[in-house]
Amino acid sequence: MSEEFLGYRGEALQLLKQAKAEIGDIVRIVKDGETYEGILIPRSEYGDEKHVVIKLKNGYNIGIRITPDTNIEKIGTAAKPTFVAPPLPKQRHDLPKVTIVSTGGTIASRVDYRTGGVRPALSASDLYSVVPELAEIAVIDTQILFTLFSEDMTTKHWSETAQNVAKHIEKGVEGVVIAHGTDTMGYTAAALSFALQELPVPVILVGSQRSADRPSSDAATNLTAAVAAAARAPFAEVTLAMHETVSDKSIVFHRGTKVRKCHTSRRDAFRSVNTTPLAKMENNQIVMLTEEYRRKDHARKMILKPNFDDKVTLIKFYASLNPEIIDFYVDKGYKGMILEGTGLGHISSYCLPSISRAIKEGLIVTMTSQCIWGRIGMDVYYRGRDLLAIGVIPLEDMLAETALVKLMWAFGQTSNVEEAKNLLTTNIAHEISPRTLS
Amino acid sequence: MSEEFLGYRGEALQLLKQAKAEIGDIVRIVKDGETYEGILIPRSEYGDEKHVVIKLKNGYNIGIRITPDTNIEKIGTAAKPTFVAPPLPKQRHDLPKVTIVSTGGTIASRVDYRTGGVRPALSASDLYSVVPELAEIAVIDTQILFTLFSEDMTTKHWSETAQNVAKHIEKGVEGVVIAHGTDTMGYTAAALSFALQELPVPVILVGSQRSADRPSSDAATNLTAAVAAAARAPFAEVTLAMHETVSDKSIVFHRGTKVRKCHTSRRDAFRSVNTTPLAKMENNQIVMLTEEYRRKDHARKMILKPNFDDKVTLIKFYASLNPEIIDFYVDKGYKGMILEGTGLGHISSYCLPSISRAIKEGLIVTMTSQCIWGRIGMDVYYRGRDLLAIGVIPLEDMLAETALVKLMWAFGQTSNVEEAKNLLTTNIAHEISPRTLS
Repeated sequence: MSEEFLGYRGEALQLLKQAKAEIGDIVRIVKDGETYEGILIPRSEYGDEKHVVIKLKNGYNIGIRITPDTNIEKIGTAAKPTFVAPPLPKQRHDLPKVTIVSTGGTIASRVDYRTGGVRPALSASDLYSVVPELAEIAVIDTQILFTLFSEDMTTKHWSETAQNVAKHIEKGVEGVVIAHGTDTMGYTAAALSFALQELPVPVILVGSQRSADRPSSDAATNLTAAVAAAARAPFAEVTLAMHETVSDKSIVFHRGTKVRKCHTSRRDAFRSVNTTPLAKMENNQIVMLTEEYRRKDHARKMILKPNFDDKVTLIKFYASLNPEIIDFYVDKGYKGMILEGTGLGHISSYCLPSISRAIKEGLIVTMTSQCIWGRIGMDVYYRGRDLLAIGVIPLEDMLAETALVKLMWAFGQTSNVEEAKNLLTTNIAHEISPRTLS
Repeated sequence: MSEEFLGYRGEALQLLKQAKAEIGDIVRIVKDGETYEGILIPRSEYGDEKHVVIKLKNGYNIGIRITPDTNIEKIGTAAKPTFVAPPLPKQRHDLPKVTIVSTGGTIASRVDYRTGGVRPALSASDLYSVVPELAEIAVIDTQILFTLFSEDMTTKHWSETAQNVAKHIEKGVEGVVIAHGTDTMGYTAAALSFALQELPVPVILVGSQRSADRPSSDAATNLTAAVAAAARAPFAEVTLAMHETVSDKSIVFHRGTKVRKCHTSRRDAFRSVNTTPLAKMENNQIVMLTEEYRRKDHARKMILKPNFDDKVTLIKFYASLNPEIIDFYVDKGYKGMILEGTGLGHISSYCLPSISRAIKEGLIVTMTSQCIWGRIGMDVYYRGRDLLAIGVIPLEDMLAETALVKLMWAFGQTSNVEEAKNLLTTNIAHEISPRTLS
């Protein structure tokens, strides 16, 4: 996504400068009697100084090692993107107002045809040109907040996003859509669920597994459903909109605290864990899947709690884990630790002294399960009881990722350990399912 | 499971000694005018010195704080366990020979009615009394190898188990069943899949989610299927036998490298990921679910490679992860690191310098996905390409836990980094599925 970063250095850069060839230009490289022609594309940040990479006509990229007798010549500029934005559709000002805030990710990107890279594209005109039916649903305002791969989102970005969304809501929009990379979209959804309380209108995160200009893209269907839900859904919660199955027929709205990316590439990668999604959209209708939800109400006074503290960690336990990692985090002054234990909430006996020390030194240590599905039950086996006895807090059926985000948020609200514990174990945004649903 | 560990210390222990009350005895405790009667039960290792815990007649446990005027009196011994082993069934010596090796866990345990705790019970007579139909299937030899909660299993236990199983196989048994706690049964199954190569006969790990003497137990069905498969299955691979669904009708045999505990408590907690199970048992028939498997063949020469090196770790990435944890493991002299990244195999840009340093210092750093399902694809986005460029090894669709175990095993075979890399990326026991199945 970072076009400004071209990645060429040293010899390779020098040769390109001599040829006055820039990223996207067509170049001819002659070396050892062989001739290569293609579009000059950016290099990886960690590439060496010796290679130039071009995209051949057949679509493959090739890296050519520079030698003293290598010759590079610019022979043209690449064809312009085949895509040209059509004129903006006539806006119907009687429609609901929806803001789309972009943080980056595949859904907010278009493949750059010159280089094969992707770049952010979220102006209203870009959107309407890719998904013209949006003009029938809402009057859309767009904002590019970040242009990040979502794996680069941090607590600071969550805070900024929450504050930004709150501003849009205060201006009276019907709903806010957040375009987001799918990789950590579940984490951000949980963060906003805690940061944006008593929402008057819906906040819908939406992503896609393929960028909008690829034929197989899920971007248009997901975005259309997200905008429609922002415009007219009856709920006022933080949700995440993605495909229900691999078919385009239905989009589900997962609650922000209960959702997890469970497949690397499928359209229906996201799943609600230990609960059903909040709602779904099918045949252009929004269907609620539960009776218990917060209704949309513009008169409700939103409570913004945007602070997070990242001095909190998550440790996934595994057979043979050395407890030195627990000591490390205690010594580093961390305030809390989410354990992703095995089964009902267990961790090896040889970790107990370190956990006990962590708790004695004031850390909040909690238990979640790497099983993902099901509920913590630490009263069943001796090990669980021992862990409870030293003060480990069982987190019911909360997702490990949600627990981590919540503890970061809790320490963003208070530095008092008991107050943070209370926040952590109080059900704020449906992060704990009733026992009967497990 | 550790009955020898009673947990009483200090004042509480002194008072119990005066009363000559032992674990399992019925005691009367008088304090502040109140009288409590119940069975004295063990204390947690991390309990204080002030409380005595008894099981009341209504089944609840209560902790009573000792004060200077507290009086404890032994008023009886608890009723014997209601369960008495019936005489051993007549063994049919024409049946196949199967060895059951117990490592601990729920399946190898019985609730001790005196104390509510569980204890290992895996003599042949105990087994036949709980599951008499086993006598119709095989001549069973039993061995208690460990009595561990499976979260306490380490690389050393994997080595011992592999060596032990190999000995039984060399003696000519038809198959070996390993009773194991479910928490880390997937890790052990992967470990044995790499340690026991070219198996002539099946090795079946089996667990249960409820102990055999509880009405809802899945122990008998799982164990019966495991013994039947050990006795007569056509395959000779390391598998894990558990319920296919919540019904008792079918038991599936998951391949040891592709299986994961995905629910804290359900009978069908284990799932084959990115592939189907190897076989299933229904109506007392073993049905193969794939054509490609290693056939049973007593003449095949087993290869035992039981060594593991635990200087290898797994780091689950999360939004805002501080890369200092990567530096910590490099500084500690670790040899390898499994990253559990997001999506197709990503990790934040601010972790890249630490990862790059780790690789430069000779660590093997690999990528798996916290999505669990799907395949790593690091050529799609710049971040993935950057990670490849610095030398991170993508592990296809290998489970993170299996990748960890395999890297521990690889460094158990060789200290040469390139050789270990080759072992890691070579498909040894179906840990990598063909691309078409993802």
